[in-house]
Amino acid sequence: MAALETVLDKIDSNLDASLGRLFRLLEIPSISTDSAYASECRTAAEFLAAELVALGFDARVEPTPGHPMIVAKAKGPRPDLPHVLFYGHYDVQPPDPLEFWQTPPFAPRLADAETGKQIVARGVADDKGQLMTFVEACRAFRETGELPCHITILLEGEEETGSPSLPGFLEAHKGELEADLVLVCDTLMWDRATPAITTMLRGLVLEEVVIRGADRDLHSGLFGGAAVNPIHVLAKIIADLHDADGRITLPGFYDGVAELPEEVAEQWAGLRSHEGEFLRQVGLSVPAGEKGRGVLEMVWSRPTCDVNGIIGGYTGAGSKTVLPAEASAKFSFRLVGTQDPAKIAASFRAFVTERLPKDCKVEFVSHGASPAHQLPFGSEALTRAVRALEAEWGKPPVLAGCGGSIPIIGSFKKDLGMDALMIGFGLEDDRVHSPNEKYELSSFHKGTRSWARVLNALAL
Amino acid sequence: MAALETVLDKIDSNLDASLGRLFRLLEIPSISTDSAYASECRTAAEFLAAELVALGFDARVEPTPGHPMIVAKAKGPRPDLPHVLFYGHYDVQPPDPLEFWQTPPFAPRLADAETGKQIVARGVADDKGQLMTFVEACRAFRETGELPCHITILLEGEEETGSPSLPGFLEAHKGELEADLVLVCDTLMWDRATPAITTMLRGLVLEEVVIRGADRDLHSGLFGGAAVNPIHVLAKIIADLHDADGRITLPGFYDGVAELPEEVAEQWAGLRSHEGEFLRQVGLSVPAGEKGRGVLEMVWSRPTCDVNGIIGGYTGAGSKTVLPAEASAKFSFRLVGTQDPAKIAASFRAFVTERLPKDCKVEFVSHGASPAHQLPFGSEALTRAVRALEAEWGKPPVLAGCGGSIPIIGSFKKDLGMDALMIGFGLEDDRVHSPNEKYELSSFHKGTRSWARVLNALAL
Repeated sequence: MAALETVLDKIDSNLDASLGRLFRLLEIPSISTDSAYASECRTAAEFLAAELVALGFDARVEPTPGHPMIVAKAKGPRPDLPHVLFYGHYDVQPPDPLEFWQTPPFAPRLADAETGKQIVARGVADDKGQLMTFVEACRAFRETGELPCHITILLEGEEETGSPSLPGFLEAHKGELEADLVLVCDTLMWDRATPAITTMLRGLVLEEVVIRGADRDLHSGLFGGAAVNPIHVLAKIIADLHDADGRITLPGFYDGVAELPEEVAEQWAGLRSHEGEFLRQVGLSVPAGEKGRGVLEMVWSRPTCDVNGIIGGYTGAGSKTVLPAEASAKFSFRLVGTQDPAKIAASFRAFVTERLPKDCKVEFVSHGASPAHQLPFGSEALTRAVRALEAEWGKPPVLAGCGGSIPIIGSFKKDLGMDALMIGFGLEDDRVHSPNEKYELSSFHKGTRSWARVLNALAL
Repeated sequence: MAALETVLDKIDSNLDASLGRLFRLLEIPSISTDSAYASECRTAAEFLAAELVALGFDARVEPTPGHPMIVAKAKGPRPDLPHVLFYGHYDVQPPDPLEFWQTPPFAPRLADAETGKQIVARGVADDKGQLMTFVEACRAFRETGELPCHITILLEGEEETGSPSLPGFLEAHKGELEADLVLVCDTLMWDRATPAITTMLRGLVLEEVVIRGADRDLHSGLFGGAAVNPIHVLAKIIADLHDADGRITLPGFYDGVAELPEEVAEQWAGLRSHEGEFLRQVGLSVPAGEKGRGVLEMVWSRPTCDVNGIIGGYTGAGSKTVLPAEASAKFSFRLVGTQDPAKIAASFRAFVTERLPKDCKVEFVSHGASPAHQLPFGSEALTRAVRALEAEWGKPPVLAGCGGSIPIIGSFKKDLGMDALMIGFGLEDDRVHSPNEKYELSSFHKGTRSWARVLNALAL
């Protein structure tokens, strides 16, 4: 095994070529939620598998009922080395609203910002740029000698749609996916200069609701006042889901939601100066969640209920005096602790059904569900990773929570008994899921170096 | 003046040619609410002006800030004859959702139904078929002799968008539009066999609301729980607009809303058997309005508040875990009695503004406002029209209310001091504003005959 410094030097000298490979991946519009882009998802999968084969991995594209997986395996030089499973996703969110992009979302570019260069493209921070930090770290080991561990890489194409195929895939490929530890690169740094290891991840329940009234759209003059309006019914349900203190009113919703351990609460309280900036960066100033809780708590360790989209009736230009036949909304619940996704989905459906007027029908569609995840503090892998990141960045990583969901983390724990070490190099202002998504060039470069150090540390 | 029977015979023998002219008008997609169809609105106006010139009217197309008006004038044979002003509108609603049309909306056709032949096309009942009953009645008088009255015809192209240009136009053309009585054909019969004269029309206030939170769409995982969600804010406002008894909660909303006079209440009570059928025809069974009131009361003489459209966040296929930057809804208020449209719009805007969280901004757009209208019972014109309709249909007309709005009716009263006689031949199942809009061939034919009789009766 080459000395770590040799590997880090190789990463530095490879940077331009590494960027070129990332740009080629970013040019592929692998939007998983829209079936019109299924072939682009496959193209992205094949591109990555070919990259890994070129690095000496035994890599293949595996079909699923949805978008394909990539499974790639390579051995370190000695049997007794640890075995890590790296997870990432190559699918991206839809780029809309397109009119707000300064340049096309799938034409990646380097932009100059006050803080340094940035890579701009849909999916660069979530998760293509991040997953490529790991691939490029493997490349540097390969180009200077041997891998420091046994490495399995699993890349999926359905993370943005709740990973519907993954649980079944893990079950079916249990044997070849088993490892000592899962590594995941889909999370944030604390700030531009401070790395973070994410120890808590919120779970997710995605429910779509369609409420139907009359069997056709009605003239609001002829029927207004007498015919039920599905938009009103839906609005009342949405309004009822929170009380005046911002708490969610679903029966049983807070079962399994614990208060923070004292030491964690103290660490987070020390980070409070961050709170104003967190909202200010998106033009807000007032925390909108549960009364009496800090912003970090709201987004890291408290559950939520949000409507992600709503539509009903006439939404074009001008006015149309119509009473719509239906209205629909997409709901997401972020879960923490041991909240049970199935119980929450059931409680939600009962909540909606109880509020339906006699003349309305409801249709529910699940878009996925996954539990929250919490990494035990003080594990050996965590300690080693902390040291490795401190060596690269000059300061210890924040042990953070993360409001977003990576559904597979729960499955790794549940199906394969493996904990996950979540280290990512995104920043909060990366405009993830928004127009002009970006990833700092420094995140890409030092992220790659960080993985080299972490892999090295895990193997020692 | 030819004998009435001669005129009626001419209407009968003209029917096929009359239908041909109507079809040509229906083929023009004169959708007023969408500016993409502005030139089609002009085409429809020019078509009608040319028709009226061919009938000997002094007709012209007059520009407005929006879609053009048609003003056409023709004199009867003696100066002492009464002078009527006929009002109609050539604009139509958007045809969406297109996928529910059995045939294209602007390709009119005759369909066979159990109850007889029907004309199917967007706008045939609202209001092209209806206005052509009057034009074809004029034609029959012309082709057999002289018009029975002095007639001015005013056709507008903005009725479906709240008639924004009409008040100014009436003001500017007061002199040439003055007449003894306004005739309007944009209302319904009581049922297939029973004509109706509409004596009450609800007014209308159209308000669009856009609520904005963060300055961009946010990832609901990263920000969910801490960032304000404009969909929730909008839903709460919509939910707050009605109380548990279906009453509207805007302060001052019911100022000017009177209970029905006893005799009218009794007449409507006698029509109650109609109520179940009214809702059943559109797949509903339970009156959704104010508790303790009948369906006819709800749609004829009570004010309403309805959301006609709502949109926010991701509304495509699948899911997108986004916290949207904005959400918007289109509201309509139907007014009765002496409710003041300006006061109601102001009360609504205050109601919304009071409910805005500190981090939200709101934008209001007015799409029009008009007061309600009530025709005095027992006027001479009403008595004559009742007799004329009874002669055509074999039974007296119902003296009805109408839930829909014809904003100009209020303006005729307010600006020109003229009452309106509203006689229409639409049916409740005409699918006005919905896919597969239709108009009974019998409505078109006997409607034309009815106007001949009414014009004749007014002149006697």
